[in-house]
Amino acid sequence: MSFKLTILGCNSAIPTIDKSPTAQLLNVNERFFLIDCGEGTQIQLMKNKIKSQRINHIFISHLHGDHYFGLIGLINTLHLLGRTKELNLYAHKGLKQIIDLQFQASNTELKFPLFFHPIPPDEEKVLFEDESIVISNLILKHSIPSSGFLFKEKKKTKNIIKAKIEEYEIPIAQLSSIKNGADFKSKEGKIIKNKELTTIAKSPHSYAFCSDTTLVEENIATIKGVTLLYHEATFMKDLVEKARQTGHSTTIDAATMAKKAKVKKLVIGHFSSRYNDLEELLAETKSVFTNTYLATDGSTFDFDTI
Amino acid sequence: MSFKLTILGCNSAIPTIDKSPTAQLLNVNERFFLIDCGEGTQIQLMKNKIKSQRINHIFISHLHGDHYFGLIGLINTLHLLGRTKELNLYAHKGLKQIIDLQFQASNTELKFPLFFHPIPPDEEKVLFEDESIVISNLILKHSIPSSGFLFKEKKKTKNIIKAKIEEYEIPIAQLSSIKNGADFKSKEGKIIKNKELTTIAKSPHSYAFCSDTTLVEENIATIKGVTLLYHEATFMKDLVEKARQTGHSTTIDAATMAKKAKVKKLVIGHFSSRYNDLEELLAETKSVFTNTYLATDGSTFDFDTI
Repeated sequence: MSFKLTILGCNSAIPTIDKSPTAQLLNVNERFFLIDCGEGTQIQLMKNKIKSQRINHIFISHLHGDHYFGLIGLINTLHLLGRTKELNLYAHKGLKQIIDLQFQASNTELKFPLFFHPIPPDEEKVLFEDESIVISNLILKHSIPSSGFLFKEKKKTKNIIKAKIEEYEIPIAQLSSIKNGADFKSKEGKIIKNKELTTIAKSPHSYAFCSDTTLVEENIATIKGVTLLYHEATFMKDLVEKARQTGHSTTIDAATMAKKAKVKKLVIGHFSSRYNDLEELLAETKSVFTNTYLATDGSTFDFDTI
Repeated sequence: MSFKLTILGCNSAIPTIDKSPTAQLLNVNERFFLIDCGEGTQIQLMKNKIKSQRINHIFISHLHGDHYFGLIGLINTLHLLGRTKELNLYAHKGLKQIIDLQFQASNTELKFPLFFHPIPPDEEKVLFEDESIVISNLILKHSIPSSGFLFKEKKKTKNIIKAKIEEYEIPIAQLSSIKNGADFKSKEGKIIKNKELTTIAKSPHSYAFCSDTTLVEENIATIKGVTLLYHEATFMKDLVEKARQTGHSTTIDAATMAKKAKVKKLVIGHFSSRYNDLEELLAETKSVFTNTYLATDGSTFDFDTI
C-alpha cells in the first residue's frame, strides 16, 4: 500500500540541463497518477525507471508550456508502443484541440481511447474516485486559468492480526467486515470484540499540488492538515512584486500557506531559473515553516515516513 | 568560414535516454540553421554549447512528432529570454496553426516576429538565399508529406596571397575583383596575371538532408556529388518490407542513394529504437558505401575535412 511522490521536474518556464520543467508522478497503491507533463517528461520517467504505460490518469494544471509541452510526445510514444488501454486526461479545455490538431497533422489515429475530462476553472469538483482515493481540483490564481489538485486517500481499513485468524478460525468471507470494524462470532458462539482482532488503521494520506499560483487564502481550509503540500515558490521574498505581477508565489507565500493549513510537510518547487543556489530558497522558506524540502529532479517523498 | 554539422538527435519515433529524436544544427560561416526539432532539442543545444538565440532559420522536414515536438518549447524559451530578432520557420503548412493555437492557449504574444514559410509538398523551391548559401527543399516520399533540404554553398572566391598585396601595393578597392578572378595592373602599368596573385578557391560545400523517406531515385541528380549526405536508415535490410510499408529506408537504401549520387560522405541516422548495437547498421551500410558514419547525439562533421 504505497503512497509515494516522485519529482520528475521542478523548474519554472525555462528548462536547464539538470532541471526539467514541472512533472510529478504520484504512486498510490500502484496506481500511477501523472501531474503536469513539461517537455522531456517521458525521458524523466525512463530515468526514474517508471513505466509510462502504467499511467492511466494525467492531470495538467494549466496551459503554460512548461506544464504540458511534453504531453503530446508522451501520448505519441504510448501509441507507438502499442497501448490499447484507455488514458484519462484532466485539463483545461483548450488542450483537447491542441492534441487533436497535432495528431491530425501526422495522420495518426490513436490505438487507445483518450478520454478528455475538462477541469472547471471556477468550481471545485471530484475529478476521479475509486475505492481508495478521491481526487479533486483546487482553484488557483495565476495569469491564466490554473488548477491545483488534492489527492485524498480514503479511510483505511484496520489490519487483522494474523494469529487471531488462526486462533478463531475466521473464514475468509468475514475478513472484509472485520477490517471495517465488525466483531466476530466464533464457532462456539462467543463474540470476539473487533478491538481484539485488529490493529488500528493508519491515518489516510493526502497530497495537495499548488502550481502555478499566488497564495490563495480560500484554499487553506480545503487543504488543512494534508500530509504533504507541494507549493510553487518561483521567487525569493525580495521579488515579491514580480511574483504578484506574474501570478506566482514567493518562498514566504509557500511557507505561509503550509503554516496556516497546518500541513505536515512542505515541498517547494517551480524555481525561477535565475537561482543557482536553491539552498537559499530553502532556508528562506524554513524561516517560516521548518519542515520544508526542495523539489529536485528525481527526488522522492514516501508518505508512510512523514 | 566554417561549414559544420552537429547532430543533436538521431533516433526515430521513440526517444531513449541517450538518443534524442531528430534535430541537427548546420553552422555555415556562423549562420546557424536548425534542421528538425524533436522533443528536447533546446536541452540538446545547451548540452552542445550552442546558443539558441543565434538560430534565425528553422527547417522542419515533416509533421511527425519526433521531428517537431521540441519546436514549441524552443520558441517559447526564445520568447522568455527576450528575443526581439525575427525567426524564420520553413515547414509544411499545418505547423503554423499548431504553434498559433498553443500560444493562444497560454495567452502569449511573441516578442519577436515569427515568419512562417510554407514548404510546397510537390515542388522544389529555393527557401533561403544569401551571398554565401542557397537552401532548397527536396521532395521525399513518406507516409505524410515530407521534405529534404539541400544546402549549397555558393562558389567561393579565390584567396589573395598576402605577400603579393605588399609586393605590388594592391589597393583595398581592387581586392574584391582579384578574388573573383581579375588580373591587376601595377603602378608601372604591368599586367600581373590573377594566377600569380591568388591561390585556387576551395570548392564549395554542400549538404543534403533526407529524412523521413524511402529511397527517391528522382533526387539522385539533384544531390549529385554533395559533400555530405544525411540519409535516414531506420531499418536493417532484413526489414525492407517494413521499411516499404512505413515509408522509411534501410541501410542499403541509404547506401545506394549515396553511391548513385556519388556523394563524398554518408551519415546515417533515424535508427529504429529496436537496435541497441548501431555498429551492425554501420557495417551493413558500409558493405555498399564505404565512407559512411553514424549520426549519434553530439557528433559533429566538419566539411573542411571531408
